[in-house]
Amino acid sequence: MPVKKKTTKDSRVTMTELVLPNDTNTLNNLMGGKLMHWMDINTAIAAQKHSNRIVVTASADNISFGKPIALGDVVTLTANVTRSFNSSMEVYCEVWAENIPSGRKFKSNSAYFTFVAVDQSGRPIDVPELVPETPEEQEQYDGALRRRQLRLVLAKRMKPDEATELKSLFFES
Amino acid sequence: MPVKKKTTKDSRVTMTELVLPNDTNTLNNLMGGKLMHWMDINTAIAAQKHSNRIVVTASADNISFGKPIALGDVVTLTANVTRSFNSSMEVYCEVWAENIPSGRKFKSNSAYFTFVAVDQSGRPIDVPELVPETPEEQEQYDGALRRRQLRLVLAKRMKPDEATELKSLFFES
Amino acid sequence: MPVKKKTTKDSRVTMTELVLPNDTNTLNNLMGGKLMHWMDINTAIAAQKHSNRIVVTASADNISFGKPIALGDVVTLTANVTRSFNSSMEVYCEVWAENIPSGRKFKSNSAYFTFVAVDQSGRPIDVPELVPETPEEQEQYDGALRRRQLRLVLAKRMKPDEATELKSLFFES
Amino acid sequence: MPVKKKTTKDSRVTMTELVLPNDTNTLNNLMGGKLMHWMDINTAIAAQKHSNRIVVTASADNISFGKPIALGDVVTLTANVTRSFNSSMEVYCEVWAENIPSGRKFKSNSAYFTFVAVDQSGRPIDVPELVPETPEEQEQYDGALRRRQLRLVLAKRMKPDEATELKSLFFES
Amino acid sequence: MPVKKKTTKDSRVTMTELVLPNDTNTLNNLMGGKLMHWMDINTAIAAQKHSNRIVVTASADNISFGKPIALGDVVTLTANVTRSFNSSMEVYCEVWAENIPSGRKFKSNSAYFTFVAVDQSGRPIDVPELVPETPEEQEQYDGALRRRQLRLVLAKRMKPDEATELKSLFFES
Amino acid sequence: MPVKKKTTKDSRVTMTELVLPNDTNTLNNLMGGKLMHWMDINTAIAAQKHSNRIVVTASADNISFGKPIALGDVVTLTANVTRSFNSSMEVYCEVWAENIPSGRKFKSNSAYFTFVAVDQSGRPIDVPELVPETPEEQEQYDGALRRRQLRLVLAKRMKPDEATELKSLFFES
Repeated sequence: MPVKKKTTKDSRVTMTELVLPNDTNTLNNLMGGKLMHWMDINTAIAAQKHSNRIVVTASADNISFGKPIALGDVVTLTANVTRSFNSSMEVYCEVWAENIPSGRKFKSNSAYFTFVAVDQSGRPIDVPELVPETPEEQEQYDGALRRRQLRLVLAKRMKPDEATELKSLFFES
Repeated sequence: MPVKKKTTKDSRVTMTELVLPNDTNTLNNLMGGKLMHWMDINTAIAAQKHSNRIVVTASADNISFGKPIALGDVVTLTANVTRSFNSSMEVYCEVWAENIPSGRKFKSNSAYFTFVAVDQSGRPIDVPELVPETPEEQEQYDGALRRRQLRLVLAKRMKPDEATELKSLFFES
Repeated sequence: MPVKKKTTKDSRVTMTELVLPNDTNTLNNLMGGKLMHWMDINTAIAAQKHSNRIVVTASADNISFGKPIALGDVVTLTANVTRSFNSSMEVYCEVWAENIPSGRKFKSNSAYFTFVAVDQSGRPIDVPELVPETPEEQEQYDGALRRRQLRLVLAKRMKPDEATELKSLFFES
Repeated sequence: MPVKKKTTKDSRVTMTELVLPNDTNTLNNLMGGKLMHWMDINTAIAAQKHSNRIVVTASADNISFGKPIALGDVVTLTANVTRSFNSSMEVYCEVWAENIPSGRKFKSNSAYFTFVAVDQSGRPIDVPELVPETPEEQEQYDGALRRRQLRLVLAKRMKPDEATELKSLFFES
Repeated sequence: MPVKKKTTKDSRVTMTELVLPNDTNTLNNLMGGKLMHWMDINTAIAAQKHSNRIVVTASADNISFGKPIALGDVVTLTANVTRSFNSSMEVYCEVWAENIPSGRKFKSNSAYFTFVAVDQSGRPIDVPELVPETPEEQEQYDGALRRRQLRLVLAKRMKPDEATELKSLFFES
Repeated sequence: MPVKKKTTKDSRVTMTELVLPNDTNTLNNLMGGKLMHWMDINTAIAAQKHSNRIVVTASADNISFGKPIALGDVVTLTANVTRSFNSSMEVYCEVWAENIPSGRKFKSNSAYFTFVAVDQSGRPIDVPELVPETPEEQEQYDGALRRRQLRLVLAKRMKPDEATELKSLFFES
């Protein structure tokens, strides 16, 4: 059965969360772990929409946390698949925080997660190809290969010498 | 006031969690985001113990998820500081999963988180130096510099050319 | 200080939730009360965005629940302000449910909530006017007056005889 | 099999909740959506007790929120079935709030929910008749017909002209 | 200021909980710790009602768990103060479980908790006297002295020899 | 099949929890019931490790609460089996609280829980014998018999006269 192609829009998901007391540390700011939990759900739904399958988290790339997000702030997460590789998908997630009464709004951070589509027994299963449509989507698509090599090198499943695309990340970008 | 030195043992924290229904996906396996939430709390407590300060998550390094962890499994997380840099600390976290009735036990994954110690107003404040005591701790201590450079390069806050330690990660390790 | 005008788009909020075990009844379907909880948060954020104020729920109109929403389904809620009256705002919320692996997607239900904008002491404070821009928005805007009269009659704060707009709801629509 | 009759007392349920931090907004008051969640559970148990069946929420009538309920307050909810119609039941719920140290106690609000009794496959199944025993119960029983017509008209499943009982709500009560 | 007297009825509290997935173990039965959590809230509210004060848990007596309570069961907890001693109160709590569709209903267990009334700074403060009104209440009132001695002996704050009332528990009851 | 013997170390479990807003009362201190919930999970895991079985809580002995534990404190619970009796196990749990920034650390309390090992149908099943190895473990082992008699007397399943070991608790210790 040929697997049909999908675009970025097909998997786009927007999630909105209100920072509640139990999500915060003793400075009344959102805990990093809670935000990672939301990012995982947000990106998992995007991967589900791309693949129409149950998905399991394979990895989360390096995540940096910037300015603190406060109790009562509104957090908006958007995610979409950037590229697929057989049964796996890379998903990009961007997080914005907004304190509505004060009008303060800023980009908190972004990250890449990867997911594997599985059948009911948990076995990997192929997913549709992602077809980039805009220059920005093409850039994300191209970068996905380098990020994939970095993941493999960090997981010691690829030798640095073989990571040809990755070298360009460090020496040409 | 001189900041006193600390060892790895001073910050070691063990956390045990039982996988409950709300922690699981539709395959009855622990969701990656929930595990990241636990890892963040586990490593934050280690950073607190090292610094005797309030700490905020600065970053989480690449996390790979391996075998699925099932509903009812017992998850054990241990964390300790590996090295400090002024007001920031790198913390290593290791996750084990155990299905007690069946005797199945395995290492699920590991990751590095970084934290910044802050005062009551949220301003960074220096923390004690970490003194490695065993060869294994020394290796973690040495590697911390390379991982720090990788974080800076990925956050575009250091040029790849300047990441002298990082090159060795890719070309000599 | 003159209060500036706002459009429907200014308050539009999309929220996405995954149905987890604790949200379900013994038939593994989403409990009505949990959905109402999500609808309240979704509409409250829309009212906050319109008013740039803290808001408190004043009322929820009649809500009908249709087809059951199952464990693991993705629930998407969208909300926007339809009209404001001094310090109060009517917000429309629409709920869609989707079972991604099976491709089943349907509109679950919709409802109107009203909120009052308050200052830090909890006292009501005026909000911007809502200016409808499309025929559909105009229809929601016009209907808001009838729904407001129905709320007042049901709360016994207006005599049915005085609810001139409401009569048209029952006898002309 | 003849379905036996039940009285109001047979389904009466009292529920007591303590307002915890995560139930509150930034003014430290109970969020409306959390209260609706409790009301749904309270009325669902009453409907279960009347029918000795699994029940699903069919609708919640207009709910008005009055004075704010504060963090630490004790909320008491009581519910009982007011009338049954084949497989559906109308349940009345009354909510009281109490700040015990200060002695402040007040009726917060009340509402009607409707439930459908279902079998294990989710198919509607007939429930016992409700027999009112006091004048107050009789009034609730009589009013249930008018409220039912209002629900049907609002759901556009009955023409206003046919809602003969409903007219009396607006023009004679 | 003379402290007024109170009766058992003044502090009676009924709480109803639905057993949800996250409350259960891998056999789908309510976990003992969750039930203890509910018993603590139930008895704390009773102690608050008796004293009109903030209260803190001082102790929980031996609790035995009987038949398992299943997912979806309705748990009813009732509590009332049995006797007060200066700033402390003993509260009796009884737990019933009911599986409504099957009609299975049974007393699960009972226990005594003690609370201390405190002012805003957390300092103990005297509470009203409890006046028993029925033979059953008088029996609870009398037994409270024996149970208090048992607590003191177990906490090694009273020598067994001085526990004159306690001896009767073991040798005469 | 002969059941093998186990030592105290085989069942030792350490659990670490951070006190979050929803765990606290209006004085911002950890609620007793939440701590009991954690103690039950901690001791249940120890009983599981000793028996390699599903376990159900049979009883919790008298628990005294000492100094208040504050919001943001780190709570460390350790548990291990002290003795087994056919299918039941007594587990000892010790709770320490630590406010890391201030360096305040203290033993909060301790308690004994008992568990029964069951098979998949919930029927009791024999567990390994516990062999004490140190004088302290031997003391816990010996005391387990007295505590067991106290539980049986309190549950009215043993006559005080027959509780020969228990008498020594009151008259010789």
